[in-house]
Amino acid sequence: MTNLRIPGPTPVPEVVAQAGAAEMINHRGPEFAAMMKRTNEGVKKVFQTANDVMTLTSSGTGAMEAAVVNLVAAGDEVLVVSIGEFGDRLINLVNIYGGKCTELKFEQGVAADLNQIEATLKANPGIKKVLITHNETSTGVTQPILPDLAKVVHAIDGLLIVDAISSLSSVPVKVDEWDLDVVLSGSQKGWMTAPGLAFVSMNERAWAIADANKQPRFYFDLRRHQRSAVNGQTPWTPAVSVWFQLDKSLELMFAEGMDNIYARHHRLGQMTRNGVKAMGLQLLATEGVESDTVTAIRLPEGVDGEKLLQVAQDDFDTVFAGGQGSLRGKIIRFGHLGHVHEPDIEAGLEALKGALAKVGFKG
Amino acid sequence: MTNLRIPGPTPVPEVVAQAGAAEMINHRGPEFAAMMKRTNEGVKKVFQTANDVMTLTSSGTGAMEAAVVNLVAAGDEVLVVSIGEFGDRLINLVNIYGGKCTELKFEQGVAADLNQIEATLKANPGIKKVLITHNETSTGVTQPILPDLAKVVHAIDGLLIVDAISSLSSVPVKVDEWDLDVVLSGSQKGWMTAPGLAFVSMNERAWAIADANKQPRFYFDLRRHQRSAVNGQTPWTPAVSVWFQLDKSLELMFAEGMDNIYARHHRLGQMTRNGVKAMGLQLLATEGVESDTVTAIRLPEGVDGEKLLQVAQDDFDTVFAGGQGSLRGKIIRFGHLGHVHEPDIEAGLEALKGALAKVGFKG
Repeated sequence: MTNLRIPGPTPVPEVVAQAGAAEMINHRGPEFAAMMKRTNEGVKKVFQTANDVMTLTSSGTGAMEAAVVNLVAAGDEVLVVSIGEFGDRLINLVNIYGGKCTELKFEQGVAADLNQIEATLKANPGIKKVLITHNETSTGVTQPILPDLAKVVHAIDGLLIVDAISSLSSVPVKVDEWDLDVVLSGSQKGWMTAPGLAFVSMNERAWAIADANKQPRFYFDLRRHQRSAVNGQTPWTPAVSVWFQLDKSLELMFAEGMDNIYARHHRLGQMTRNGVKAMGLQLLATEGVESDTVTAIRLPEGVDGEKLLQVAQDDFDTVFAGGQGSLRGKIIRFGHLGHVHEPDIEAGLEALKGALAKVGFKG
Repeated sequence: MTNLRIPGPTPVPEVVAQAGAAEMINHRGPEFAAMMKRTNEGVKKVFQTANDVMTLTSSGTGAMEAAVVNLVAAGDEVLVVSIGEFGDRLINLVNIYGGKCTELKFEQGVAADLNQIEATLKANPGIKKVLITHNETSTGVTQPILPDLAKVVHAIDGLLIVDAISSLSSVPVKVDEWDLDVVLSGSQKGWMTAPGLAFVSMNERAWAIADANKQPRFYFDLRRHQRSAVNGQTPWTPAVSVWFQLDKSLELMFAEGMDNIYARHHRLGQMTRNGVKAMGLQLLATEGVESDTVTAIRLPEGVDGEKLLQVAQDDFDTVFAGGQGSLRGKIIRFGHLGHVHEPDIEAGLEALKGALAKVGFKG
């Protein structure tokens, strides 16, 4: 079995994969409604929220688009805090849909600075919507500021939208305790499910804005999803087989216990970081903000990233991810989220060490 | 095993379901690229086209939205020909995204009249885009006019967009021979695959319009899908497990042979219609335009549709679909597309007969 060490899609446990092969059902019938009730309750538990959470048939990017088209109107002043590729994707979305976007970008590898965000909001009093990535998959950084940021944003009567696609379910994201207005996640990350479903939580503050927003939308119109959910349905045919998987994976997650899952991810994150550093390699993330779901590793001088990934796959049956955008060829990324345990990390580290030696790295 | 006799999602053959449970892979790696090359070739063969066909991670409604946001600009004069719920959905989409929509609606159960379409286009020379449903799932009607309609639309230098979601792969849709500019389908119909993937074919005429169109779009931006496809990738994480299924189902489809598949659907359609009429029931579709993928059956006076569906499910383990919109309580729908054979139809007819008797219908 290949060691799939990328930050999503993540390995799907055999029982979850098999759950997806169950007999097809009517998406407008009682079996689907019962399953949807169960998964909604489960997903809300993982989101640590009493808010509505909508399950969309799309990738995580679909959830990002849903957040933007439901909550940003053309002409709205918006702040996007970006610490990498996925933050830049939010900027892209806001610009495409006509938001007036103020970009606050930070260097790759660091987390956003709350003081700079506050200063930007003070300098731009028209901004009432802030979008931020919780866990930046492209740089391996988790932002520690969410609870404080929510206070800052709400102090100016603003709305906070958090892309937690690659963190929520692996790392604690306390949606209600931290008072996060809109939060996104995706099935192919810590949820141990195949890609195809994405989640969006909305609190009352967010619904009020979405209800008043005239931005054109249909497939990702969250009001339609909310209305259909009352009848145990989705507005459009859902990815039923992936939903079967989610139903089963939630069972596994609660059997393990969310606190145990968070502890496991933290332990495996540290194990990965320690192992990588012991090889003489450096992390992209600065100390204290390293992600417990993905580690971005700087490629040593002279090491060809493409070749390293190829050797890892061909000779060690291990798949790492390369760098995205301007980090292409400069880093590789080692995923450790979802259905992953110590032996997977050990094997991943061994594979990395072996592949590095084969491409000529002396350590 | 439940007899799932709805017009989608359709039963997934066991080998296809199992294919979806295969080990997860990197969606940016060589295995995915190889699979995508195979499925693209297969899907194009089923579409009978040399045009690009994009595979989206969404329901069929996502493909409808993709067609509208890529090809209709705000202010564009558009004709939508509607013969039921799904035609009305196209009207809805065009209106939401700012198109100036002329609606040409026909009574439930009939096909569109080409002369009226021509007259409407003559009376509205500004209209250069026509949207139409090929197979109206809500009324059980297949439109026979597509080849002629394409000539009419192209004679005015227009663009023809065809929703063939519930027909293409079960019923011949000759995209190139008929010169259809944009054509849609969805995995959960004749493709014998779980829901979650949708298809959009685009010819050069369509690409020229999409390239020039300023309509905001991101998740469903077909240019992004076209660009990524060159590298054997999708722009956003695809529904990999459903894609595994599609890969296998295409194998089954070509093993059976497309002409045999079309013949089987026609045979089963006739068998269903004959069986239903023999019970003394009437079809909603007028003679000559009945769909070979779904039969809409008028409920006899005094028969409670909800109760009939319930009895069929509870006592005969058979799931039919009810009517949608204004047809709710007036019809039931009997699906016969995808992985379906004579015994499924026989059992379906028996179940219908038995359920009708139980709710008091004397025939």
